Amino acid sequence: MSDSAINDNDLVLLYLKQHKSWLIRIKKGEKTHTHAGFIEHNAIIGKEFGSSVESSTGKTFRLLKPTIADFLMRFSRPTQVVYPKDLGMIAAWTGLSPGKIVVESGTGSGALTAFMANLVRPNGHVYTYEIREEFMEVAKKNLQKVGLLDYVTTTKKDAKEGIDIKDADIAIIDVGDPWTLVESFKNALKGSGMLATISPTMNQAEKITAELLEKGFIDVWTVELISRELEARTGMTRPSMRMIGHTAYITFARKGV
Amino acid sequence: MSDSAINDNDLVLLYLKQHKSWLIRIKKGEKTHTHAGFIEHNAIIGKEFGSSVESSTGKTFRLLKPTIADFLMRFSRPTQVVYPKDLGMIAAWTGLSPGKIVVESGTGSGALTAFMANLVRPNGHVYTYEIREEFMEVAKKNLQKVGLLDYVTTTKKDAKEGIDIKDADIAIIDVGDPWTLVESFKNALKGSGMLATISPTMNQAEKITAELLEKGFIDVWTVELISRELEARTGMTRPSMRMIGHTAYITFARKGV
Amino acid sequence: MSDSAINDNDLVLLYLKQHKSWLIRIKKGEKTHTHAGFIEHNAIIGKEFGSSVESSTGKTFRLLKPTIADFLMRFSRPTQVVYPKDLGMIAAWTGLSPGKIVVESGTGSGALTAFMANLVRPNGHVYTYEIREEFMEVAKKNLQKVGLLDYVTTTKKDAKEGIDIKDADIAIIDVGDPWTLVESFKNALKGSGMLATISPTMNQAEKITAELLEKGFIDVWTVELISRELEARTGMTRPSMRMIGHTAYITFARKGV
Amino acid sequence: MSDSAINDNDLVLLYLKQHKSWLIRIKKGEKTHTHAGFIEHNAIIGKEFGSSVESSTGKTFRLLKPTIADFLMRFSRPTQVVYPKDLGMIAAWTGLSPGKIVVESGTGSGALTAFMANLVRPNGHVYTYEIREEFMEVAKKNLQKVGLLDYVTTTKKDAKEGIDIKDADIAIIDVGDPWTLVESFKNALKGSGMLATISPTMNQAEKITAELLEKGFIDVWTVELISRELEARTGMTRPSMRMIGHTAYITFARKGV
Repeated sequence: MSDSAINDNDLVLLYLKQHKSWLIRIKKGEKTHTHAGFIEHNAIIGKEFGSSVESSTGKTFRLLKPTIADFLMRFSRPTQVVYPKDLGMIAAWTGLSPGKIVVESGTGSGALTAFMANLVRPNGHVYTYEIREEFMEVAKKNLQKVGLLDYVTTTKKDAKEGIDIKDADIAIIDVGDPWTLVESFKNALKGSGMLATISPTMNQAEKITAELLEKGFIDVWTVELISRELEARTGMTRPSMRMIGHTAYITFARKGV
Repeated sequence: MSDSAINDNDLVLLYLKQHKSWLIRIKKGEKTHTHAGFIEHNAIIGKEFGSSVESSTGKTFRLLKPTIADFLMRFSRPTQVVYPKDLGMIAAWTGLSPGKIVVESGTGSGALTAFMANLVRPNGHVYTYEIREEFMEVAKKNLQKVGLLDYVTTTKKDAKEGIDIKDADIAIIDVGDPWTLVESFKNALKGSGMLATISPTMNQAEKITAELLEKGFIDVWTVELISRELEARTGMTRPSMRMIGHTAYITFARKGV
Repeated sequence: MSDSAINDNDLVLLYLKQHKSWLIRIKKGEKTHTHAGFIEHNAIIGKEFGSSVESSTGKTFRLLKPTIADFLMRFSRPTQVVYPKDLGMIAAWTGLSPGKIVVESGTGSGALTAFMANLVRPNGHVYTYEIREEFMEVAKKNLQKVGLLDYVTTTKKDAKEGIDIKDADIAIIDVGDPWTLVESFKNALKGSGMLATISPTMNQAEKITAELLEKGFIDVWTVELISRELEARTGMTRPSMRMIGHTAYITFARKGV
Repeated sequence: MSDSAINDNDLVLLYLKQHKSWLIRIKKGEKTHTHAGFIEHNAIIGKEFGSSVESSTGKTFRLLKPTIADFLMRFSRPTQVVYPKDLGMIAAWTGLSPGKIVVESGTGSGALTAFMANLVRPNGHVYTYEIREEFMEVAKKNLQKVGLLDYVTTTKKDAKEGIDIKDADIAIIDVGDPWTLVESFKNALKGSGMLATISPTMNQAEKITAELLEKGFIDVWTVELISRELEARTGMTRPSMRMIGHTAYITFARKGV
């Protein structure tokens, strides 16, 4: 069986069309039911990633190998998701990469945590703080499922009471009142270390900016990314009429000493 | 001297204000001249990253540790730069992360190459193809400067004649006629492998999309990210009046088999 | 009865909340049914515009005097609607105003026709051409309903065969193949007269631009307006998450002689 | 001499290329100097609008008949300009058209005043209030120049002290603290009358929204229009890289009684 063949217990993205796919774990003898018919897992085992299978109603499903983005958008989530565009911008601007030490609060569903853990592997680490027990448990399960729990330390704690980490490279604040955590996270960062906060409203962006400047952070700026799909069809190309209007403002800063 | 102190030969980002900074290498006895006065490197050595120094005219410059984004935006570049927002989106959507094997053409200034090499370290690799000798030389120097050349193999070759890599995880096409490389890059990818192309114009996005569908790629879609800075000031917050109108369309696809 | 009181036979916009309203004509003894209960027209007659009425289920509906935009968005329409943002931009840029002579094709539902007729009144006029009989009939009924038919001449004709008007101030092309009408509409315009075309796709914008330049038009440019609602709520203001991604490109030009 | 020929004393838009034009008044014997050479007015007189003339350096300038938008963008202005996209949206949404009675504060340079006066002609009227004498004088001169002063009554007064107009159709507030004028303008409007305010910042939009709801206004909503130029060139079409990032939020409401 080829290396790229699908085995029992593999995770597979059953893809019908854009915005219509299912992330499943293959189990010998089981079936997956969709509005477009059911699919026998036995018919999937042994096929190559990238190939296809027919459902009971004759629809073609493609068998894709899920990427981190596929996982994140499907995490069990008690909280707002962070979109790939925003995850990517945070990674690109903060310099998230192998070896980096990251501190984060809150953990939420662990989606942002997982994304970061996946990039700081194998020698970096994410220390994440969450006050709600039930969120932390969901996040741990999500991280376990994608095999990234080894690169993460989850702590049930209100980060504004201070955290034990020192000399972190990157700090991420994703809570409703980010300004309350600036002092703790400043202490956790090394000089010139990067901080990013995620704010759905402009009032939060305004308030966190004032607090960051007050606490001596440098290069403080805020950006939002507007994602616009292009329907590229020969002779009739245009931006999609469907569009997400807003996700979040991201405020970046570097620690001054 | 503290671990986070600046040493001779270190790279430092001299930061005056947003959109006004200089990336310099510290050399004992040298000076850096700016429109806001000159700065003695000797006055920088021994200071901590995140601290500040005064120029000859009394202006305060912050001493920041450059991130990968700081480097990329300042690469010597014979070609169009790829912006952090676009780099990040490519990373997030393709699943770029440690261990991945990436094929790319063209190399250009090596900025995208460097960004990717930085993320696939230490066990992944970027194989990059460029037909113009002089671009390849610039790229190599840029990669050397940021210490990432070990994770990159540069080859002077027209990728449309075929490339030797097999089972790559990710393929990136950043040339003016991306459709000419689809066949070669399809052969280089493993089943379900991710491909991304970068197209300044809608016509390119239209043409590459048709070619990808024709060649059996799956989940083909195109997006552009519009970056909007928010000027977050207490009681007078608004989007910035300055804005980059457009950078590029990114088309994503996965290899069907 | 006050001048601003609602009379039998008046048009009223029954407003429940944003994006949830009904445009009705008041008829003594009738009822209007909504998902939030029914409303007796007799309970409306004699009330002032701006006041409110309760439905059978106790919901409050406001009684608003419909504006031209309220009408246009609710025209019977065999074709794509033109949004207020685009109508307004066409008016502002072409100088649409009382006394102007306008030529238009196609008529479609007559929404754009009505908007323009409302602005060129009382001494201007809109000459509109449509090849599909059934569209022209719908448009006439729509124009009749809003009392603007006197300022419009509708003609069933393929405008590319030439039209009889000379020295028009403004020409509007809103058909799928706008380039076929440029010659006719150039002949109808006075020197320096304004032309605007509405194109859903970039390919149409590209093709009409080439044709306009080829035919000697001046100041040819294309714009799209992206409409972004702001949810302005004390302490939690942010752009709306719902958004229309794209409506149309508008290409403007002036006739060269 | 043809009706569309240019006469002494006419206003002409000397057009060199997009974003490069001059609005001049033709004076027998005079010259206009530009960076691309000078142009003799005598060479312009008698030519048709839409035709061209050569400058002393051999550059071709087109002779265009200025529209209201051409005037407004060039008004002497002590204050921020209102852009055509925003003017148009205000017109389309408030139902600005011949016969409407409009109240406005402040007058500023009179650009918005002129735009509205041009649309409510000949039987409508704009009543505009301004506290700064010098602005009012500039506005009057601007209105005189475009021949619209007959349709405007300018009053030097702080509108928050109350205004004498009753039963206006439309109220426009374009001042830094729009919430202070809501009471006065509510009294001036008829029931269900339309109000629009123009706010550069999100904080202003937030505060005026709260005040409008507090004062019983209905259908209160806020929008910003993002204008994106498309560079439509055969085979290489893309959004322009230059773009204005932000102009203003427009908040609309209707008077409840």
